[in-house]
Amino acid sequence: MAKYDTSLDQIFTALGDPTRRAILTRLAAGPASVSDLAGPFDMALPSFMGHLAKLEAAGLIETEKTGRVRSCMLNPAAFAPVRTWLDEQRDIWDARLDRFDDYVTNLMKEHRNGPRSQD
Amino acid sequence: MAKYDTSLDQIFTALGDPTRRAILTRLAAGPASVSDLAGPFDMALPSFMGHLAKLEAAGLIETEKTGRVRSCMLNPAAFAPVRTWLDEQRDIWDARLDRFDDYVTNLMKEHRNGPRSQD
Repeated sequence: MAKYDTSLDQIFTALGDPTRRAILTRLAAGPASVSDLAGPFDMALPSFMGHLAKLEAAGLIETEKTGRVRSCMLNPAAFAPVRTWLDEQRDIWDARLDRFDDYVTNLMKEHRNGPRSQD
Repeated sequence: MAKYDTSLDQIFTALGDPTRRAILTRLAAGPASVSDLAGPFDMALPSFMGHLAKLEAAGLIETEKTGRVRSCMLNPAAFAPVRTWLDEQRDIWDARLDRFDDYVTNLMKEHRNGPRSQD
């Protein structure tokens, strides 16, 4: 039953941390070097690099080393599977509501037609 | 910098597991008892209950006990913060692209106007 999607696992897990979400928000405004990114966070660099590694493994960011500077940039396309999954859930839910609407509409029709057929 | 949002942490972390996503997909189609839900999963009941507890703590599902049967239902409103967060990221990204478009448009105008002013 459970369709296993490693990529969604990694993306959602990566998004489940406030530091990682803040990094993504910063990178949505434009690329940045690791040291510029790390600046505002009160965190040891190895821990910060661990967060970047999880974002990169999930495909949410890309990094590139030029000389001694590592630059990070957002990969906005990586959010697409999340939106797709959310849309799928909504479609299933909406279909259920539609069935419920039909059910209620039919009940009301039967109720309205019922007494009239007895006239 | 990192705006701490416990609720988003819990929601994203809850979504980062294939069993929990499959439970949500099943519940999008309508409420179900714990035993009906657990049926298709090859998993010990305590582990399965652990997944349900995480979904409930994140607000994604609600459970209700009637007699000896515990029913689970989706709480579709709990997905709203996820969509809001995704939309915010997209807005920041789009604003960045708009600024880049303006920059390129201005460059092209300057390039076009440049030689003409020398005529």
